Order: sequence, then C-alpha cells, then structure tokens
Amino acid sequence: MKRGKFITLEGGEGVGKSTNLNFLRHILESAGYTVVMTREPGGTDLAEKIRRLLLDKDSEAVTPMAELLMMFAGRAQHIHHVIEPALADGKWVLCDRFTDATFAYQGGGRGMDKTKIGWLEETVQGGLHPHLTLLLDAPVEIGMDRMIRRGDLDRFEREQTEFFERVRQSYLQCAKQAPQRFKVVDATLSLQQVQAQIRAAISEII
Amino acid sequence: MKRGKFITLEGGEGVGKSTNLNFLRHILESAGYTVVMTREPGGTDLAEKIRRLLLDKDSEAVTPMAELLMMFAGRAQHIHHVIEPALADGKWVLCDRFTDATFAYQGGGRGMDKTKIGWLEETVQGGLHPHLTLLLDAPVEIGMDRMIRRGDLDRFEREQTEFFERVRQSYLQCAKQAPQRFKVVDATLSLQQVQAQIRAAISEII
Repeated sequence: MKRGKFITLEGGEGVGKSTNLNFLRHILESAGYTVVMTREPGGTDLAEKIRRLLLDKDSEAVTPMAELLMMFAGRAQHIHHVIEPALADGKWVLCDRFTDATFAYQGGGRGMDKTKIGWLEETVQGGLHPHLTLLLDAPVEIGMDRMIRRGDLDRFEREQTEFFERVRQSYLQCAKQAPQRFKVVDATLSLQQVQAQIRAAISEII
Repeated sequence: MKRGKFITLEGGEGVGKSTNLNFLRHILESAGYTVVMTREPGGTDLAEKIRRLLLDKDSEAVTPMAELLMMFAGRAQHIHHVIEPALADGKWVLCDRFTDATFAYQGGGRGMDKTKIGWLEETVQGGLHPHLTLLLDAPVEIGMDRMIRRGDLDRFEREQTEFFERVRQSYLQCAKQAPQRFKVVDATLSLQQVQAQIRAAISEII
C-alpha cells in the first residue's frame, strides 16, 4: 500500500479556509484519491474536547504555556488516531491548520519561544510533516472584517489587530523557512484566481 | 511578606493520602500558618476540566504523550493562578500530588522518557519545586486492596499490578534522587505511627 500524502491549509482569520478546503477535497477526490478531511485543534473526540477548552471565551485566563501544551496534547491524539492510520492506509489527509498555526499563534501571537515549540514538534511528531502546506495570506484588516461579520467570536478571535499582525508575519516566516513545502496564496484575489493557484500547487504533487 | 512554603503529598493508590492531607493541614494551621490545600491534576477551573478528561474511563485511548502534555498544561494553570500567588502572599500550599507523580505515573507507569518529563518540568515550573515532599509508601497489593474496596475506578485505577509496581519504584527513585526534599513514610504502619512520622518531618520546616 503506497502511503498517502498529508496536506495542510493554513492562514489567519477570514482568509477563506473553509471554501478552499472543500475545493481541495474536490480536486483530490476527482483525481481518485480517498481523502480524510480533518482539523486542528481537534480531529478526535478527546482533541475536540481540548479544542472546546481552548476556544472557550468564558474560560479563566489561559496561560500561553498551558495553551501551547494543550495544542500539542490534542495533536498527539490526532496523529495517533487519525492522521497516521489514514496515511498508512494510502489515504490523503487534508487538515485545516496544523503545527505552522502553533508557530504563528502561540509563537508569533503569544510570543512563546519558538525553540520550545520546535522541541514539542519534534517530540510529538517525530518525522511527521505535511507534504504540502497552502498558506492563504491576506492583510490583517481584510481577514478581520470577514471574521467580525461572521460574529460570535471565540477566545482567539477576540484578540487585537497587533496579535493577528504577528500571526501573519510568523506564518510568512514559516513559509520562507520551508519554501519546498509551502505555497503562499494571495487570498485577496478573486475566488477564481485563488483556486487557480491552489490547483497549480496541488497538481505538482498529485 | 515572607514567602510561604510548598509541601506536596505523594503516593500510589490507597496509601491514605486524604486522611493525612487533613492531618497536615491541621498541624500547619495549629502552628499559625494560612494553608491553601489543592490537588493535581486540577486546582483551577480549567485544570479540573483537564483532570476530568484525564481520568475519564470511557475516553478514547489516550496516548502517553497526550496524557503527559495535559498533565503539564493543567500544572501551568495551577502554578500561575493558585500556587505562585499563594506562596507570594505568604500562604503555605499543601498539594495532593505534583510533578513527582508525573515521573511516577507517566514516567514509571507509562514508560515515558524521563529526560522529556524533566524538560517539561523545567520549562513549565522554572525554579518552582516543593520544599518538602511526603511520600506515603506501601507495597502495591496493600494499596490496591484499599483502592478496589472504594470502587468505581478511574482510568488510572484500572491499570494492572505491574503498572502500580513501576509507579511505586519510580516514586522511591525520585526520593533517592532528592533526599533533602523527600521524607518517605511507611504507610503500612498504624495511623498513629504514620502521623508521628509526618509530624516529625513537618516540624523540621515549620
């Protein structure tokens, strides 16, 4: 059985991840692959419970360290129960956010030491990394506008512009450090143009 | 304001921690200290929610790595919101289990790499360590008997004898590595004799 590939979609708030995830799934399924679509934080029953604790806007103040460790705890469950078994079974895994989001949100946004995040990445994931990461990039004010229009903001979405600016810059830094793995897509373009870029990126690994 | 002291009570299942925690509190309060009694996993609202996820016997299989990270996530909350503020305020903190339990249960019991646990301990706690740790020690079969008589076992209590044997040996190893901090109490003795040992140990730091 040929191992499947692991594709992640990353980006800040309101950059159009949901629409493009479904588009990606459609491309892959049309090409004949079996796709497992999942998300982080979350992806298993326990990891979704951890997600709810993380996003709860009425929670006691969550320390950046607790947040970081809860992210990786959920990730350990997700890899063990969902991602690894699917890849081993020849399925393609399409994940809405993964460890780059931890570097962006907990590293850039919260200012956690990125060498510590790197240690956790290595310890929890071993050799597991995405084959392709699509980063939907847009200026912060554009994404925030869309996010606010959706309403009912979670604990992360309630952060300020400067937080999201640091998230964006950290994402772009991740992309610069792993140019082979990343494809940065300009999310301010029309949906048609965005999806043309996604199709081009995915066609290289199909 | 003179900083308070941090005392932990450790031990496997059924060694009599609850009774002796109350006894310890009584000694300290009689000596005029303000005592904050707390526990791990838990101790804050969020950390107690993490505790419930950890103990849930109907949970999906929890990977040892997720379990370890959840323990330290709750600990980060507990230190930040409860332990540090209390100590800074001159109160004495009396905690039912702390990081030695992680070395014993996740390290010894689950076989997680103790250098990784040490990295997390350093990262999450910085310089915070108990001033005194009382380890209630008893042969596994004695503790298990008491635990089973209590009934309705949680996810940890459902483990087998060999697991608890590794927990016990790891606890004793912790004690050997930090003889200044640990006082090992023979929990098979009469309650009166156990409490005489506890009183002697505590009188050294009062």
